[in-house]
Amino acid sequence: MDLGISDRVRPLRDAVRQMVREEIMPLDVEYHHEVGKHPDGRFAFTDRQNEIREGLKAKARERGLWNFWLTDSERGYGLSTVEYAYLAEEMGWCTLAAEVFNCSAPDTGNMEVLERYGAQEHKDEWLGDLLEGKIRSAFLMTEPDVASSDATNLEFSAVKDGDEWVFNGEKYWSSGAGDPRCAVYILMARTAPRDGDVPRHSQHSMFAIPANLPGVTVLRAMEVFGNDDAPHGHMHIRFENVRVPASALLLGEGRGFEVSQGRLGPGRIHHCMRSVGQAERALELMCKRSVSRTAFGRPLAKLGANYDIIAECRIKIEQSRLLCLKAAWMMDDCIAKGGDLRPAQPWISQIKVAAPNMALHVIDEAMQMHGGVGVSQDTPLAAMYAGMRTLRFADGPDAVHRMQVARKELRGYTNQSVK
Amino acid sequence: MDLGISDRVRPLRDAVRQMVREEIMPLDVEYHHEVGKHPDGRFAFTDRQNEIREGLKAKARERGLWNFWLTDSERGYGLSTVEYAYLAEEMGWCTLAAEVFNCSAPDTGNMEVLERYGAQEHKDEWLGDLLEGKIRSAFLMTEPDVASSDATNLEFSAVKDGDEWVFNGEKYWSSGAGDPRCAVYILMARTAPRDGDVPRHSQHSMFAIPANLPGVTVLRAMEVFGNDDAPHGHMHIRFENVRVPASALLLGEGRGFEVSQGRLGPGRIHHCMRSVGQAERALELMCKRSVSRTAFGRPLAKLGANYDIIAECRIKIEQSRLLCLKAAWMMDDCIAKGGDLRPAQPWISQIKVAAPNMALHVIDEAMQMHGGVGVSQDTPLAAMYAGMRTLRFADGPDAVHRMQVARKELRGYTNQSVK
Amino acid sequence: MDLGISDRVRPLRDAVRQMVREEIMPLDVEYHHEVGKHPDGRFAFTDRQNEIREGLKAKARERGLWNFWLTDSERGYGLSTVEYAYLAEEMGWCTLAAEVFNCSAPDTGNMEVLERYGAQEHKDEWLGDLLEGKIRSAFLMTEPDVASSDATNLEFSAVKDGDEWVFNGEKYWSSGAGDPRCAVYILMARTAPRDGDVPRHSQHSMFAIPANLPGVTVLRAMEVFGNDDAPHGHMHIRFENVRVPASALLLGEGRGFEVSQGRLGPGRIHHCMRSVGQAERALELMCKRSVSRTAFGRPLAKLGANYDIIAECRIKIEQSRLLCLKAAWMMDDCIAKGGDLRPAQPWISQIKVAAPNMALHVIDEAMQMHGGVGVSQDTPLAAMYAGMRTLRFADGPDAVHRMQVARKELRGYTNQSVK
Amino acid sequence: MDLGISDRVRPLRDAVRQMVREEIMPLDVEYHHEVGKHPDGRFAFTDRQNEIREGLKAKARERGLWNFWLTDSERGYGLSTVEYAYLAEEMGWCTLAAEVFNCSAPDTGNMEVLERYGAQEHKDEWLGDLLEGKIRSAFLMTEPDVASSDATNLEFSAVKDGDEWVFNGEKYWSSGAGDPRCAVYILMARTAPRDGDVPRHSQHSMFAIPANLPGVTVLRAMEVFGNDDAPHGHMHIRFENVRVPASALLLGEGRGFEVSQGRLGPGRIHHCMRSVGQAERALELMCKRSVSRTAFGRPLAKLGANYDIIAECRIKIEQSRLLCLKAAWMMDDCIAKGGDLRPAQPWISQIKVAAPNMALHVIDEAMQMHGGVGVSQDTPLAAMYAGMRTLRFADGPDAVHRMQVARKELRGYTNQSVK
Repeated sequence: MDLGISDRVRPLRDAVRQMVREEIMPLDVEYHHEVGKHPDGRFAFTDRQNEIREGLKAKARERGLWNFWLTDSERGYGLSTVEYAYLAEEMGWCTLAAEVFNCSAPDTGNMEVLERYGAQEHKDEWLGDLLEGKIRSAFLMTEPDVASSDATNLEFSAVKDGDEWVFNGEKYWSSGAGDPRCAVYILMARTAPRDGDVPRHSQHSMFAIPANLPGVTVLRAMEVFGNDDAPHGHMHIRFENVRVPASALLLGEGRGFEVSQGRLGPGRIHHCMRSVGQAERALELMCKRSVSRTAFGRPLAKLGANYDIIAECRIKIEQSRLLCLKAAWMMDDCIAKGGDLRPAQPWISQIKVAAPNMALHVIDEAMQMHGGVGVSQDTPLAAMYAGMRTLRFADGPDAVHRMQVARKELRGYTNQSVK
Repeated sequence: MDLGISDRVRPLRDAVRQMVREEIMPLDVEYHHEVGKHPDGRFAFTDRQNEIREGLKAKARERGLWNFWLTDSERGYGLSTVEYAYLAEEMGWCTLAAEVFNCSAPDTGNMEVLERYGAQEHKDEWLGDLLEGKIRSAFLMTEPDVASSDATNLEFSAVKDGDEWVFNGEKYWSSGAGDPRCAVYILMARTAPRDGDVPRHSQHSMFAIPANLPGVTVLRAMEVFGNDDAPHGHMHIRFENVRVPASALLLGEGRGFEVSQGRLGPGRIHHCMRSVGQAERALELMCKRSVSRTAFGRPLAKLGANYDIIAECRIKIEQSRLLCLKAAWMMDDCIAKGGDLRPAQPWISQIKVAAPNMALHVIDEAMQMHGGVGVSQDTPLAAMYAGMRTLRFADGPDAVHRMQVARKELRGYTNQSVK
Repeated sequence: MDLGISDRVRPLRDAVRQMVREEIMPLDVEYHHEVGKHPDGRFAFTDRQNEIREGLKAKARERGLWNFWLTDSERGYGLSTVEYAYLAEEMGWCTLAAEVFNCSAPDTGNMEVLERYGAQEHKDEWLGDLLEGKIRSAFLMTEPDVASSDATNLEFSAVKDGDEWVFNGEKYWSSGAGDPRCAVYILMARTAPRDGDVPRHSQHSMFAIPANLPGVTVLRAMEVFGNDDAPHGHMHIRFENVRVPASALLLGEGRGFEVSQGRLGPGRIHHCMRSVGQAERALELMCKRSVSRTAFGRPLAKLGANYDIIAECRIKIEQSRLLCLKAAWMMDDCIAKGGDLRPAQPWISQIKVAAPNMALHVIDEAMQMHGGVGVSQDTPLAAMYAGMRTLRFADGPDAVHRMQVARKELRGYTNQSVK
Repeated sequence: MDLGISDRVRPLRDAVRQMVREEIMPLDVEYHHEVGKHPDGRFAFTDRQNEIREGLKAKARERGLWNFWLTDSERGYGLSTVEYAYLAEEMGWCTLAAEVFNCSAPDTGNMEVLERYGAQEHKDEWLGDLLEGKIRSAFLMTEPDVASSDATNLEFSAVKDGDEWVFNGEKYWSSGAGDPRCAVYILMARTAPRDGDVPRHSQHSMFAIPANLPGVTVLRAMEVFGNDDAPHGHMHIRFENVRVPASALLLGEGRGFEVSQGRLGPGRIHHCMRSVGQAERALELMCKRSVSRTAFGRPLAKLGANYDIIAECRIKIEQSRLLCLKAAWMMDDCIAKGGDLRPAQPWISQIKVAAPNMALHVIDEAMQMHGGVGVSQDTPLAAMYAGMRTLRFADGPDAVHRMQVARKELRGYTNQSVK
């Protein structure tokens, strides 16, 4: 169980780290300050944004720092999940980084879906452009009217009508759907009635559809702590009698959960390792502040509980990173053993609980060490906190993941699964 | 030690509660949505805002629900701190409420300062208008370049030059200084050098000055989790050779800490009781959500740890409220015994730590119960969280208040105070 | 809502405090060291123990410090629950104290049961002697074979046979049943079958019976962290065809829960206030240690997080004490309003969770401040911890009390009670 | 960084696991119940104890399950620290296990000291017998009169007098010194005055001396939560003019800290991995209880927060185990790179904080799931808790280890070390 950084990845990690800290982070603040300066509003890019982003992407691609997430494809590095995890951590240091290396959510997950379950026409239409970073995508899952943490609740409807599917309903928290470059939606819809004969986990199907069909209305951007995350955006979208050809269906009718599980596992690991990176950045900010400010005649570091606070943050970070790497290793191991990912699931649930909570703790302590500045625009901490806070719901709230972990734990003690 | 609601205050509390929940809260959202719609930008009020706010204020005043905070004046109700605390809790339910009853920070504290330490000319110029809700005020304490948690660090300078004081330096987190109605600053400045003969706590003085003097530049609004809190604003202000007459000095040269202590005690109690009110509102939202959403076939309330979470929130709220009331009672007791507020200080430090942390816990759990909606614009929770988070630094960070509590505790066990 | 100490109780509190700290605590250690020195073993008293205990009791009684708990009787002080709470706190400082004042569990609760529900023959036989401290009693509720946290599970059986009841079954954690002076058991038994027509909360009845009937076997003492708490003892007792006359039944068949609720409410408040007393003692020990030991060149108090730890303990203690007093006040208020105690129940559940957890926290921190000595026989902390730990199960585990609090909280939001 | 179990160790781990669970655990309870039955008292072994223990040891040795800890010797398996860690975890499942495999504290550390720093005469006299499990040893460090967490405080004195050293002073918490087989003490003593010219960390020296010298008095056994841990014992020992030959000095005068550091590092890892084993056992007990008891009509597992509690325990265990393995790997890496263990120290400090706190959490939750039984003699949980609680002081309290971690963290941000 080698959780260390491999010789193959170490130079990649170093190159990514250097580019993130020396080239991307200095531009990240400016990039985000441009939001809203375009005459069309917040959901459009200014020329300066395009210049920054595409310039960085070009450099990254030129250096071969591109599409690392392609874990099992001939077109990528063929990195293992553990190897990729080390890169994801580096990309967690600032929000723009992941996209620069074409490794950002939700595109990586969507590309995997298209690669694995897409028809050739889907690959031709979208996969190539996504791999080149020319277009972006969104994943439409969560719905406003039901507790989406239990995805069997989803009510957005797809009805077969001849050679077409007809969509009706609303989705929200559709991350990335605000981006003007967003060209494709991966979308989960109910294709069998709730109370019919179809088993609960076979009532939904997954589709790949163009982003701008007639009948689609983007109602608004959901805000996170008041921030609309423009132009990426977590959009609230209404579908009224939207028609797509039968070929939009992925994998098969009623197999939506199968696609979704395959999609979410690696994505959660990436999220969690980026959380570890954010926590490291927060701890760095905390430490720097603690040695550079003086109160009551001593540097903050030496006052009160600050040593203990710093030490606890370090301990929590290390524990979370190791657990993420273990979960990544479990996934690699599952793949090596034939691809049944179920043994890795409880590990992914574990990190999904552990990593964001750890990162929130570290960021919060870093804020406290800074005083008022810690929640202001003068540090990235408040934005980090707000973003990280959403991870405790996104891809399943803590409670659902804890339930999965507990069920697995108890399975050994009961003849029949305790549900 | 009667911590209950008095017969005198009960009808006031009921009237305030009813007005907050039935009249103010329904308009609060609209009021805040108006921000930024004025052609002059975010730091100006639209006509609709003025209409809403002044309409509510007029109603409140008409009903005699006005200036409750005037605890010991003939012009007010002469409420005790305990009595006022019950009203402050109600006003915590929405951000606009306190101002409607002319009980909002920083005005109440500033009015107390003017009442107690102001010359007649200060009272004539500002106190009357403040008491009538015609103008607003700001309190300028925190500085960007020093750890202001140790206020002896403050470096903003006031130098006597003939009959005038000359101010130079920067202040930030000057709450309320963004409001176009803000007419007066209460300001703390260094009037003796750090390394001279003057004792550390006598190096600063307090001043009352007009808000718009030549040489004053409002540089920017500090943001809290990305929110500039316009038009109230927590402003960053630069003073360059700003001149005021000698009479601007309050109480006496070198007595800034004396004024500040008198000012901060009641203000902290008000803040903490408003925190209790916010926590109650968050718990209400949490409970409503928990019984109205269904997942895995049961209402959220019945899933997993939710009963325990709700119960813990209730227990924490009750404990904090009682501690706040006890602190308020201690302050009343000090006043009754002649006015030395020192016995009440450790109690105020205790609630200053306990209440905001409790409220943050409750709000955070309420967010989690809501899923993504909990951090979005569809509930007030994220804004509540952001605002509450600042209370862990404002008026002294947790660590400083814990230090005060510990010193008091240890005093009994050492001959000489352990510092 | 006067939660302060009344003028009537202040001198009593002072007298109790002085006697506890100056007379009882110095003998408490010796008293407990005598355990096991009697030739009959650990469940017998040595002469020295009798001398110490009866000597102290005689002094207490002489000074009128006796039977404070008799809240509503003509024979007692007629103290309110709030008033008594202040005395209970003082008695929490050492284990022997409560008995010295004839205020110890489980006698106080059992005496209340006999007073309120007992026939005259019960009062004649036991109540007088209990009130005079001549005999002791036990309360037999918990059973080894069922989850007794849900008392409807209890299976110990009482069957009517002519003019007699016949008992069969086992009880354990019968506190006080080890004491050689224990003369009477208050006992809960199932008198209706689990699956019959009788409602779940009417299937049990309460009895008062002599302690040493034929067919009763005391199997063993339950240990708490290895301590058998001899000679008081938490006994495991078997009943085989034990016969008692019909008159042993209290209140009425099927009304066991009614008796038990009336009994447990005040007892929980007493327990919780004694917990507050224990926490105060632990904090005192912690503070003394922190100023008397030096490491790394400074007193422990000034090292690392110790100020924060001390402050947090103080804050937690104050909050818990106030909540206990509020619960006591609610009980008094219920009594004043006619005796329906239901409005007080959620408050009692709140403190039942809050106070022992608080005390455990404080004791644990005190242990840590002491290093190894903190868990050794050289301080009372480990014994305090062990005893306090049981309070998180006794009279209902935390989880059950949280459930009660949550149900009450949610009742306002649902038409039908959420169970 | 391979943290997995090696092919070499897997069969050893399986054999140890099987022997612990199937052969040792069934006898462990009986073994401990024998304590005190010998006519000489608690610090003597009964025949049955000798039979149990030596029988198991003989079996273990026969199977080659012996002296695993000998990480770098030709006489052992030459296991790496990571490899040994997996075995230590298994040995954590019951108290007798480590000794059965001749891997128990404090012998392993003491043997390492003798192996590395002992003269040939020490090896001849003690090392052989220790390696064969014929005698046992104690480590005398902690002193009653100083805060031993700062070991530079130690005052126990060794004075050179001709060819001899003369010892005076007291030691306590000398674990293992109660065992009648204990034949050798490894002892740290002050050999230079506190206020002289000798640097603070060179004022102490380490010695190896026979256990039963004239002038040595074992005063008493220190108790942990009332348990004297007989006959092993954590003894309080007085030395009065105890004379030993000059050759008793290990490594060199003033090099006590050097020896102690070399000794404590691996020992802490072993302790921590045994903690992980204990936590696993506690979680197993918790899960079994949760599915076998019913309350309110459902198995405990399905009530309230129990799923969340179980899941959090699992997550915490996994994180701690991985961190321990990482620390072990760091130690192996240090050894591989030449033996400077300093890079591993902060990792060892991290686990020394993390693992015992984690285990205490899990054990405490397991107790709560059991109700009263959880603190009684019917489960091993209370004894586990008491033992584990001492680990938060032993080999340095949490606060000292956090200080080490924080110093290391801050070193990167300051030119000069922040002390």
